Amino acid sequence: MTIPLQADPGAIATGVNYSWVLTVTFLIFFMHAGFAMLEAGQVRSKNVANQLTKNMLTWSVGVIVFFLVGVAVEAIAAGVTGGGGGYDLTAIFSPASTLAWVDWLFGAVFAMTAATIVSGAVAGRMKLRAYVSYTVMLAAVIYPVVTGLTWAGGYLSALGFADFAGGMIVHGMGGIAGLTAAWVVGPRLDKYNDDGSVNVIPGHSITFAVLGTLILAFGWYGFNVGTAASPLTGDASGLASFEYVGRVALTTTLGMAAGAIGASAASIAKTGKVDTLFVANGLLAGLVMVTANTDIITWWAGIVFGLIGGIQLVYVFGWVEKYLKIDDVCAVFPVHGSAGALGAILVGIPVFTVAGAGVSLTVQVIGVALIAGWTIAATAVVFGVLKALGQIRVSAAHEIEGLDMSEHGVDTYPEFGRPETVTDGGQFSAQTDGGIEEGS
Amino acid sequence: MTIPLQADPGAIATGVNYSWVLTVTFLIFFMHAGFAMLEAGQVRSKNVANQLTKNMLTWSVGVIVFFLVGVAVEAIAAGVTGGGGGYDLTAIFSPASTLAWVDWLFGAVFAMTAATIVSGAVAGRMKLRAYVSYTVMLAAVIYPVVTGLTWAGGYLSALGFADFAGGMIVHGMGGIAGLTAAWVVGPRLDKYNDDGSVNVIPGHSITFAVLGTLILAFGWYGFNVGTAASPLTGDASGLASFEYVGRVALTTTLGMAAGAIGASAASIAKTGKVDTLFVANGLLAGLVMVTANTDIITWWAGIVFGLIGGIQLVYVFGWVEKYLKIDDVCAVFPVHGSAGALGAILVGIPVFTVAGAGVSLTVQVIGVALIAGWTIAATAVVFGVLKALGQIRVSAAHEIEGLDMSEHGVDTYPEFGRPETVTDGGQFSAQTDGGIEEGS
Amino acid sequence: MTIPLQADPGAIATGVNYSWVLTVTFLIFFMHAGFAMLEAGQVRSKNVANQLTKNMLTWSVGVIVFFLVGVAVEAIAAGVTGGGGGYDLTAIFSPASTLAWVDWLFGAVFAMTAATIVSGAVAGRMKLRAYVSYTVMLAAVIYPVVTGLTWAGGYLSALGFADFAGGMIVHGMGGIAGLTAAWVVGPRLDKYNDDGSVNVIPGHSITFAVLGTLILAFGWYGFNVGTAASPLTGDASGLASFEYVGRVALTTTLGMAAGAIGASAASIAKTGKVDTLFVANGLLAGLVMVTANTDIITWWAGIVFGLIGGIQLVYVFGWVEKYLKIDDVCAVFPVHGSAGALGAILVGIPVFTVAGAGVSLTVQVIGVALIAGWTIAATAVVFGVLKALGQIRVSAAHEIEGLDMSEHGVDTYPEFGRPETVTDGGQFSAQTDGGIEEGS
Repeated sequence: MTIPLQADPGAIATGVNYSWVLTVTFLIFFMHAGFAMLEAGQVRSKNVANQLTKNMLTWSVGVIVFFLVGVAVEAIAAGVTGGGGGYDLTAIFSPASTLAWVDWLFGAVFAMTAATIVSGAVAGRMKLRAYVSYTVMLAAVIYPVVTGLTWAGGYLSALGFADFAGGMIVHGMGGIAGLTAAWVVGPRLDKYNDDGSVNVIPGHSITFAVLGTLILAFGWYGFNVGTAASPLTGDASGLASFEYVGRVALTTTLGMAAGAIGASAASIAKTGKVDTLFVANGLLAGLVMVTANTDIITWWAGIVFGLIGGIQLVYVFGWVEKYLKIDDVCAVFPVHGSAGALGAILVGIPVFTVAGAGVSLTVQVIGVALIAGWTIAATAVVFGVLKALGQIRVSAAHEIEGLDMSEHGVDTYPEFGRPETVTDGGQFSAQTDGGIEEGS
Repeated sequence: MTIPLQADPGAIATGVNYSWVLTVTFLIFFMHAGFAMLEAGQVRSKNVANQLTKNMLTWSVGVIVFFLVGVAVEAIAAGVTGGGGGYDLTAIFSPASTLAWVDWLFGAVFAMTAATIVSGAVAGRMKLRAYVSYTVMLAAVIYPVVTGLTWAGGYLSALGFADFAGGMIVHGMGGIAGLTAAWVVGPRLDKYNDDGSVNVIPGHSITFAVLGTLILAFGWYGFNVGTAASPLTGDASGLASFEYVGRVALTTTLGMAAGAIGASAASIAKTGKVDTLFVANGLLAGLVMVTANTDIITWWAGIVFGLIGGIQLVYVFGWVEKYLKIDDVCAVFPVHGSAGALGAILVGIPVFTVAGAGVSLTVQVIGVALIAGWTIAATAVVFGVLKALGQIRVSAAHEIEGLDMSEHGVDTYPEFGRPETVTDGGQFSAQTDGGIEEGS
Repeated sequence: MTIPLQADPGAIATGVNYSWVLTVTFLIFFMHAGFAMLEAGQVRSKNVANQLTKNMLTWSVGVIVFFLVGVAVEAIAAGVTGGGGGYDLTAIFSPASTLAWVDWLFGAVFAMTAATIVSGAVAGRMKLRAYVSYTVMLAAVIYPVVTGLTWAGGYLSALGFADFAGGMIVHGMGGIAGLTAAWVVGPRLDKYNDDGSVNVIPGHSITFAVLGTLILAFGWYGFNVGTAASPLTGDASGLASFEYVGRVALTTTLGMAAGAIGASAASIAKTGKVDTLFVANGLLAGLVMVTANTDIITWWAGIVFGLIGGIQLVYVFGWVEKYLKIDDVCAVFPVHGSAGALGAILVGIPVFTVAGAGVSLTVQVIGVALIAGWTIAATAVVFGVLKALGQIRVSAAHEIEGLDMSEHGVDTYPEFGRPETVTDGGQFSAQTDGGIEEGS
């Protein structure tokens, strides 16, 4: 396969760039396995298959909708708000070069990351059809409007809003959508007592949750480092866009690490022990914190941002649960929402960035507010309509039975224990969510 | 490490191509983790370690046999049937350039994919030595004859048989071999009642099965997109083989997504609910459907093929179980066999392909029939001999005890529940396969 | 994104090399998920979250310490022992090109691999603070001294010590550190009876252990093949360092496969059955065996080394358990320690290597002895101090309760069985380690 090639360097550079883009695209796609495991581990065993099914359908339904509709809406949103222009809305179906479809797939895996975050927030009580309906709307309109405003060249792009790899555009948007969805659908049965106190409903497997965390971290390198999308560019050095890849690799690593450490410290401060799920989610919150800014922050800001991400996770999680009384099952808001917004805002403070970054704090705040506002409004409308139609939530009987059986007709672990037979009823009586299984 | 390089572009192109081939080879290797989890999740907890061991030994034994014998047989098969010629059968041990070993490994991971598919069909009752013996024969002869006839330049290649990434050559072959093996070894005890009715024997963990599915999908991008093996070629543009990589990336994505949707729809039509394992296996069947043709089908054919793959999964699975009465435990025939054959045949219908694809439906049917016939015959002979020798199936006592204990001396989950102690006996009494564990 | 590029080939080569280095770096990072699953599967269910937390904190704490301190110590160690020289100790914080941070991350993932191996040996009884303290010392000093002596150009490098990808430097060092740590902390309660006989304490999930094994094998391709770090170099062919990548890919594959086969054979010889965990750990031991030498051994030496690795695993494991009476829970010494040392020594025997390899057996023995001696001494001192301070081991009550609850306040599987309620007490009475759960 050794090739005596007379090709011009431009063709070679294109091949190198697309090899790289494909590699990181595959890594980002693999994050779906990470989300599936992370979320499955954090739900009750009676709702695991439901969570896994939602994960697979998010990708399957979402990516087709994003192809057929989403990219067109993105172009329109960019054009209407002052950017883009002249986009041929049918080019996606018949592009001049099929390499354009590689670029599309690269965009699609980011879009589907935003989409899949939502499912973790609404675990255990939402109808499958409601969730899938929302995924269609997110892939067709809600997310494309956000990227139309930003990466595709619309209003916020013109203002100079900075979000390197989607800390706010992807994660912040997904986390805020999840919080909104969890608010509209309401908490799981037995999550809150009549006196307002909170019952902890532990997930069924910390092992799966941590596996998911580490798969996500692996894919995140594709997400952040891969957003330095072209190793080779057309300038004299040929490496303009890849020169900063080292900074991205470093600050992504330091942010991740500091996130886990920050959450550990906060966990000790709060409970005296290092809660494993706080460490895992803190690691992810650290990653989210640096996603918007990983290309322009200093190395020490990577550590600081990660620490903030991990610490805020613990406290924001408690705040959402106890004060907002929103049942965000898999902590998607503190991990993706608040960390994403914070990271996008803090990059506007010059002390954290390298010289010449030129990010405006005001613009960052405007951008975060606009994306958050749009996401909350659009999500509340979609789920509000579904709720009004009586299509948002399974019946109490089905919720108690578990969504695996009621929505999918399966038992995820037919040979293993059920809550009423093998857990220590006395010990965990406050921790079940009313689970009476079909076998009892 | 920045390098002032005076090298010629040809050397650069070779380096780029091999970097890419290695990357996708690793991804395809990782599919073994996917198969291991997918199959482990779909078997009883008493047979999990057996399934995992078979998976590891398939790779370990198979890849050495493929190196020592398989590639030589492939060359001979190609030469005997009219292709190839002049292959130095010892070159594999001492090639002119060690880069030839990268090409070998790229071929080996495809071969081992075909091999590992079989283990899912015969789960729960086959002796380990029988399975390993078959793996040796598959890696040495059965699979190499198929690639000798096709990719290596033999009879079917000369006819113009099209199979881009192994939809029939790898997946169809593996799925048909699995069905044949399951037929020869017979069903698990208690799978069929005396009146011919079927007992469902659910796997022990849908979570592991879905994890395996998503790992496989990740590796599949390497499998399909990576088969566009050289980003750079010797022509003027340097990108001849990479230009269509966008089509491969798109149709692989759409086929996968539509497979999950098709299976969901069929599941609702059949049972009124969205069965999680149907969604997972449908996603995989969609991938298999487009594997033979992903480089030349239109984008909408990607969706259509995926839908067909997912829908046929549900019905072919039922047909195998109820009418053929073959106990294909992990559904490898509907996922890999029938979907692989269908994908290789349907690409012969011009409406699905881009202009100039030039695939003959007749040749495709001949190719599928020849590969299927050879696979069935060779597999039946190998297992028939093992059966005649009384070496194919564990004793009924061992099957009831579980293969983990009888063949491996281990208990996969020593701390967790056993069927007789923690599942709901009444509810699932028709779903055990007679499991009386050693602890009772 | 197609680019009309006028850049010089040198810039292109740099971009290609860094794309490759980043890809393999991500693969090596993903090995943390492999270690997490491998170790989690091999510990009791009451200690799983502890193992997972240690894994995440190894990476998080270690990588920051390695950045802030470790690389400087490495440079000093190289300089003091005769190599390096002129290293600017602050350059890591402000390098001339951020691409230097990619090189740093490439080094860091190797360092963290060595660090994480230790946690498997000391599972189930060490205080989290003791483990984290050791990780700090390993990342700051212990490991950097080893690389300072070798890859960074110090004493052993000058002697001509050969260790391609870290068979001894990373795996041997980690495995020996683990054995030392397990010796200092002492065995788990009930591991040894008063008469000196051994109780087997099986891990809670072979499925997770095998998943971890296969993730590790996937990452190992990055580890070994990726150490051929630059596809393109500055010589005339442009491929000097990549020419031997084929040998690395082949011998890594054969070593891995033969490791699993060797362990299977030894398992049959010893117990009459193919123990699944022996196959998994044998596969890994085969990989370790070829890691130091994969670039210069013949193809058949790859098979021989793999077989040795797999066979020695079974017997060294028994020797450590029965004669040394060290409770190396996850078998890290036979997998990483002895196999790493053996691989680094055997490459000194010319018959195994290609012509011109020029490795001195004497130097290899010196190198292995020096690294082992330093590792044992440094590890014993750190843990000895912690032990003297009474900070190394949890209380007996906490060990019996399980570290998940006592150190982390969590229950990994709140819905599944506990030893006292769902395992077969009689059958496995000799296999528990005194587990009385908090729920009883």
